[in-house]
Amino acid sequence: MSGFPTDPRAAGAVLRGVRREDERAVDAYARAAWSVLTEPGDGVAGRLISALGAAVALTHLLDDTVPALADLTRDDLVAARARWMLRAEPSHVHTAIERARRVHVRLVVPGDEEWPARLDDLGDHAPHALWVRGRPAASDDVPTVAIVGARAATGYGEHVAAELAADLAGSGVTVVSGAAYGIDGAAHRAALAAGGRTVALLAGGVDRPYPAGHTDLIERIARAGAVVGETPCGTAPSKWRFLARNRLIAALSDATVIVEAGARSGSLNTAAHAASLGRALGAVPGPVTSAASAGCHRILREFAGMCVTSADDVREMLGWVPQPGEVRGTGRTDDLTRVLDAVSGRVARDAADIARRCGLSVPETQSLLGLAALSGDVVSDGDGWRRAPAS
Amino acid sequence: MSGFPTDPRAAGAVLRGVRREDERAVDAYARAAWSVLTEPGDGVAGRLISALGAAVALTHLLDDTVPALADLTRDDLVAARARWMLRAEPSHVHTAIERARRVHVRLVVPGDEEWPARLDDLGDHAPHALWVRGRPAASDDVPTVAIVGARAATGYGEHVAAELAADLAGSGVTVVSGAAYGIDGAAHRAALAAGGRTVALLAGGVDRPYPAGHTDLIERIARAGAVVGETPCGTAPSKWRFLARNRLIAALSDATVIVEAGARSGSLNTAAHAASLGRALGAVPGPVTSAASAGCHRILREFAGMCVTSADDVREMLGWVPQPGEVRGTGRTDDLTRVLDAVSGRVARDAADIARRCGLSVPETQSLLGLAALSGDVVSDGDGWRRAPAS
Repeated sequence: MSGFPTDPRAAGAVLRGVRREDERAVDAYARAAWSVLTEPGDGVAGRLISALGAAVALTHLLDDTVPALADLTRDDLVAARARWMLRAEPSHVHTAIERARRVHVRLVVPGDEEWPARLDDLGDHAPHALWVRGRPAASDDVPTVAIVGARAATGYGEHVAAELAADLAGSGVTVVSGAAYGIDGAAHRAALAAGGRTVALLAGGVDRPYPAGHTDLIERIARAGAVVGETPCGTAPSKWRFLARNRLIAALSDATVIVEAGARSGSLNTAAHAASLGRALGAVPGPVTSAASAGCHRILREFAGMCVTSADDVREMLGWVPQPGEVRGTGRTDDLTRVLDAVSGRVARDAADIARRCGLSVPETQSLLGLAALSGDVVSDGDGWRRAPAS
Repeated sequence: MSGFPTDPRAAGAVLRGVRREDERAVDAYARAAWSVLTEPGDGVAGRLISALGAAVALTHLLDDTVPALADLTRDDLVAARARWMLRAEPSHVHTAIERARRVHVRLVVPGDEEWPARLDDLGDHAPHALWVRGRPAASDDVPTVAIVGARAATGYGEHVAAELAADLAGSGVTVVSGAAYGIDGAAHRAALAAGGRTVALLAGGVDRPYPAGHTDLIERIARAGAVVGETPCGTAPSKWRFLARNRLIAALSDATVIVEAGARSGSLNTAAHAASLGRALGAVPGPVTSAASAGCHRILREFAGMCVTSADDVREMLGWVPQPGEVRGTGRTDDLTRVLDAVSGRVARDAADIARRCGLSVPETQSLLGLAALSGDVVSDGDGWRRAPAS
């Protein structure tokens, strides 16, 4: 069909400035086209592309010659084609690519060095392409943690989000979030302030900062980190696109931590994606009297999320630090405690008396009194044993 | 050995007023004696008693003819006998029984109707006997929940403990706790105020209210519920006995809930007992910035405790209520959302325009618009579809 370039030179011409050759240019062009034709997460498109390749699938679509595939019914294909063809104008694709070029937005596709391999875990629901401002989105060899949560966050939630993000970013973790008000913004800001890397995943085009009040913040993220979306420049965010964006946040991150979330918050959607992808999932608890923590408590209960109280907990989720030197005892329940219980600070008692009081034998008691004397807990004089004054 | 009655009549005489006959009187007397001779949780005594019976074991002890048992070494027995014999005065036992009678404390032993069968799960570490003030401690057919936690509780913790205890007690659950300041006291008080049943497990003799500041509270618990200990009347509480008492709280309860606890709180000891007994274990989360919740968060992380935010959560732990009518969705992610996203409140759009914007086919979009019109979310006029003013 005319206007959609299917040979390398023509595709390369549309993509001018993007250094790709031959089939890679055609593939990149076709993926840009698919990102215009479809809504995020379109599994039918994903299935076609993974079976046929983006360019061949596009040609078949335009020619209405899509072959039958094992797991797609004819009805699925007819319905899908009907919705895609409504947007099948070459000019839309050319405009999207041109607009991206103008605002220094890169088209990144699978096979590119900066394509995050983690996204491939989404299978047929992986994005066809990413539109990226700033640095590469998330290196596969750099630990990456999503810190997300309620827009209507409390001071407590923003404080904890900032502490976690600053500590993690300062230790080399890339902090991913969604640039929203509340928890997301606190996490991005703290990561930037710590001089760390942070990545914002937007629901619409990366040239349309959303929310508008975070325009400056998103600019700063683009300069120091990356701003990433799967919809072409100019696309408005929508509820559907926010929900679809959440799967990218979960997929791009080794671990997802929800800091505050109402009982039906969109963050639960991100948590569900993280859980279904087998990613580490954590939630920060808060007062049970705070509605802003109700979603976090649901994650702890219903999603078996980890209870996150510190950046150390998150690093432990990443399998990083084995908590050196941390003592995890639950109280002194040993015989020494029993002996010390029976030693008075006021009156001296002999070993037999102490033994009777604590229910241990006299030799056991004597040996433990000796130990306690060495550690300065008890003192002995002519009359017997007493608690050391300082202890 | 003289003074320790080993025939029914003599034992019955010491236990006068306790309606037991023959072997049961001897067994009860012997168990009272064991509770005087040993410290709580003495596994060697427990092993002997379960192998030989309390009375035979006592006779062998006094005659120094304890037979070899498969899982007790000779050294274990020699050491144990050495500590027990320090207290082996018949007058101590008689005094303990007499003192209990004077303050209306019952001696309760296995086989008595009010013996809580749950305690048998402690095996050789089960108490030899219970000393009980008030009503029977905990019927095995009444759901029983321990609500325990920090003495240095916050207002938040005491509030949540009281809410949980009042709600549970009001729904027929027996609330068990340790009568300490802070969480324990708040739980007991709220259960009493709700007209429910509550049981206090003391670390010392049940005739010695501890802490002294809770003397009135413990009196009220004894009148409306029960005050229970495994040490004879007159015994002072000690650190060891507090820790040993915690195993009784866990064993007596179907579920244990920790409301607030410092990172090294004794409540973690109770939690560990509940976990090792296979009892349901929960913890109430709190702000991660609150030291008083650090222990609860450890329970959620390290003991796989349930995150408890309400009495409903606790009843769910008990396998009670299947949360009727609760919707656990994570947000509207369906096609209707996509269509509504694309409908404007300001300008009318036709179905084809809406279909292109939301990425669905025109027939799909039309059918969903019809649904949305039925539910009053959109309206249609000659120019197309708009959001309904109220929606």
